[in-house]
Amino acid sequence: MAADALSRIGLAGLAVMGQNLALNIAEKGFPISVYNRTISKVDETVDRANKEGQLPLIGQYNPKDFILSIQKPRSVIILVKAGAPVDQTISALSEYMEPGDTIIDGGNEWYENTERRISEASSKGLLYLGMGVSGGEDGARNGPSLMPGGSKEAYLNVRDVLEKVAAQVKDDGPCVTYIGEGGSGNFVKMVHNGIEYGDMQLISEAYDVLKNAGGLSNSELADIFAEWNRGELESFLIEITADIFQVKDLESGLGELVDKILDKTGMKGTGKWTVQQAAELSIAAPTIAASLDGRYLSALKDEREAAAEIFKREGLKEDVINNVGVVDKKRLVDDVRQALYASKICSYAQGMNLLRAKSAEKGWNLNLGELARIWKGGCIIRAVFLDRIKKAYQRNPALANLLVDPEFAREMVQRQAAWRRVVGLAIQKGISVPGMSASLQYFDTYRRARLPANLVQAQRDYFGAHTYERIDRPGSFHTEWAKLARGAIV
Amino acid sequence: MAADALSRIGLAGLAVMGQNLALNIAEKGFPISVYNRTISKVDETVDRANKEGQLPLIGQYNPKDFILSIQKPRSVIILVKAGAPVDQTISALSEYMEPGDTIIDGGNEWYENTERRISEASSKGLLYLGMGVSGGEDGARNGPSLMPGGSKEAYLNVRDVLEKVAAQVKDDGPCVTYIGEGGSGNFVKMVHNGIEYGDMQLISEAYDVLKNAGGLSNSELADIFAEWNRGELESFLIEITADIFQVKDLESGLGELVDKILDKTGMKGTGKWTVQQAAELSIAAPTIAASLDGRYLSALKDEREAAAEIFKREGLKEDVINNVGVVDKKRLVDDVRQALYASKICSYAQGMNLLRAKSAEKGWNLNLGELARIWKGGCIIRAVFLDRIKKAYQRNPALANLLVDPEFAREMVQRQAAWRRVVGLAIQKGISVPGMSASLQYFDTYRRARLPANLVQAQRDYFGAHTYERIDRPGSFHTEWAKLARGAIV
Repeated sequence: MAADALSRIGLAGLAVMGQNLALNIAEKGFPISVYNRTISKVDETVDRANKEGQLPLIGQYNPKDFILSIQKPRSVIILVKAGAPVDQTISALSEYMEPGDTIIDGGNEWYENTERRISEASSKGLLYLGMGVSGGEDGARNGPSLMPGGSKEAYLNVRDVLEKVAAQVKDDGPCVTYIGEGGSGNFVKMVHNGIEYGDMQLISEAYDVLKNAGGLSNSELADIFAEWNRGELESFLIEITADIFQVKDLESGLGELVDKILDKTGMKGTGKWTVQQAAELSIAAPTIAASLDGRYLSALKDEREAAAEIFKREGLKEDVINNVGVVDKKRLVDDVRQALYASKICSYAQGMNLLRAKSAEKGWNLNLGELARIWKGGCIIRAVFLDRIKKAYQRNPALANLLVDPEFAREMVQRQAAWRRVVGLAIQKGISVPGMSASLQYFDTYRRARLPANLVQAQRDYFGAHTYERIDRPGSFHTEWAKLARGAIV
Repeated sequence: MAADALSRIGLAGLAVMGQNLALNIAEKGFPISVYNRTISKVDETVDRANKEGQLPLIGQYNPKDFILSIQKPRSVIILVKAGAPVDQTISALSEYMEPGDTIIDGGNEWYENTERRISEASSKGLLYLGMGVSGGEDGARNGPSLMPGGSKEAYLNVRDVLEKVAAQVKDDGPCVTYIGEGGSGNFVKMVHNGIEYGDMQLISEAYDVLKNAGGLSNSELADIFAEWNRGELESFLIEITADIFQVKDLESGLGELVDKILDKTGMKGTGKWTVQQAAELSIAAPTIAASLDGRYLSALKDEREAAAEIFKREGLKEDVINNVGVVDKKRLVDDVRQALYASKICSYAQGMNLLRAKSAEKGWNLNLGELARIWKGGCIIRAVFLDRIKKAYQRNPALANLLVDPEFAREMVQRQAAWRRVVGLAIQKGISVPGMSASLQYFDTYRRARLPANLVQAQRDYFGAHTYERIDRPGSFHTEWAKLARGAIV
């Protein structure tokens, strides 16, 4: 094969995400070789490449031909299920790869697996990137947000491709940047997903309050979310929520589809990992955790139905309503918008602080402002508001918490009264708002100079002699509480 | 040495916990050999044994003499720092042990380390127990709650000792039981600690609300906690809290010591593990998680002080007060008591469900009622209320959630209005109550037959083709939301 007939890059793993990313790359003018173990997927991808515009995509039917069809130093993206399938794919392909070639794993992989593979690849002279890819199927085809971490040299080898393939944001460039060493790309994608879980939970709570406290119809909800999408909440998730409320139920021919969907939520590993890593690093991430808990509890549909019956028998209606007066719809809508926005800021603050803590632990030197920039387009959490986060970290890269950025601090103060009204109303009416409530508690804990933790320290010293510090002098103290309280000494 | 001069049991690791447990064992009439690598601790323990009543305790100064001084089959308790020190101690002692002998690790060990050691011990014919010990220094000396898991045979070998040494609860026996196989003893102790964290957080929030919304003095707080300790909240932690408020500050000679303690809380690993395991097992444990988050955020004292200043500049006082009327002290105290109790039930429900989920995963066959029984005395969370939990699981061992036990369900309904008032008031006044609030959100999520998770499923199907189920027919469905919403098909 002549050198000029070789592909610029290769992609192995042709499920929908892989196919779409390959077509995206080809469409940007980069000749690409594709391979899949089940070869019908290769044909399917080749067919699509032809149908979607005679794109420069070449199907390969075995690992050797696939690898040898790529120009050196070779870069091969793999998009298979995280875990063992990645190891198997690497094993099958690396046999034909040469020192200086690069493997790029585009899956939602646990970052430590990537770090193990970096070191395994390195022993064969291969370079490695663990690259978070966000944006779902549509993003992969038309412009995802890309979070490549690992070998900087490998990144530079494919930078031209990634920068064309990624989503493009006006005046802010392509949604890709070199994240950092090791498994940082996967870690950043993991936290992105945790934030995404939080956003979805918060939106569902806004819907719940507007529907069940405000009595809004699906058609009104569609209008409100569309309106919100023209303001500070403008984002992909708000946009698709507006769409969702408009979709009629074609199965029954009655009403909107959203009302017919079972309220049991599925999940994948990244949200769970985010919560576990937050605990590992002593970072409070209650909003993200609440979104996970919301999913776990939603899955217990039978238990919840049984519980609703049991509490009804004891006199508690599902819609509690503790002396709540008539709700002013217009004000409620405005309050909920503010509550959603303020809650969202807290959730992003948690995610960003988790990234910062991990960066410090691992020496990744993550640029938080740059991460906010590459999330402005392509990914599921893309939002106008990320530009504000980018600027906050540009103003002050050492910002302790998003909440204390001067602009965000002002916004929080402006919105806190409405936020308290919404959470208070929901509590009165028995509408669960764990995400908004966790955000509000986070805010009220973080902004208080004095917490009741003095009592916890006293308790710990009482039963475990853990000692405590004082507010008025340095040192570590222990007190014989029981003796003093019971007058043995005093 | 004649067989009748041998000790019944041995204990290695003579920090305060180890010394106290050894003295407790000796006091119950079991001759015990003790050993510590730093031999001054051996002398110290022997001195104490003499001073505290000529107890049958023999100091040993090297591993060989220590082991050989114990009757066969030998049982040796080790109480050293979890992790590597346990491995080192096992290695030093097991050299002189024989098949059929038992090692009992009494530390707060990660359960998987215990499982590894069980298998290592087994390869030498040794038996192994990972035994949770709760009750702090005082409990170790006078009667702890013991949670031994691992080899049943090993348990039977020391059952007589453990049953005498453990705390004794009137009409309910000693606070010890065989927990189950593998690392179950450590796991149960870990969850116990998670629940303990939750209890302490909830009590500190009750204190915060009473002090900052109700204006109660330390002396009033002491009286109220003492009064609460005569009712449904009766427990060790409430009792010591009443004590704490009575202790004067001897350093300054002014006021109570609790006000002089710095509000930064320390922590150990078990709380973190509890939260991580809850995520691993898809169990919502938001109250326990909130108590951890409370500790993380309390530790950021400087950041909180800076944040308080920043928000003050933006017009938000630390004590927010959004049009809150005059608070009726007496009613507030009664409301807070109910809120604390209801919040506590939710926290225990979370812990119990975490234990059940792990038991199912590992095949431990944990008896939840029996666990509640052995927590009734000796340990930090000991409380009258645990008898009710014991009975709830005796009534129905398959109880899906403590909240739906008929008695607890009734109590929740009776208390929910007061609970909502307290959380609502705290939110209005800007007093953070993350634990009470997390419990209330847990309750309101679990008892609702219909959650807004239908919207989350719609979103996931919209951007990720994750599919959804319907409420009115079986199957898994996918919808082309964007096309339908934008009128391309309809």
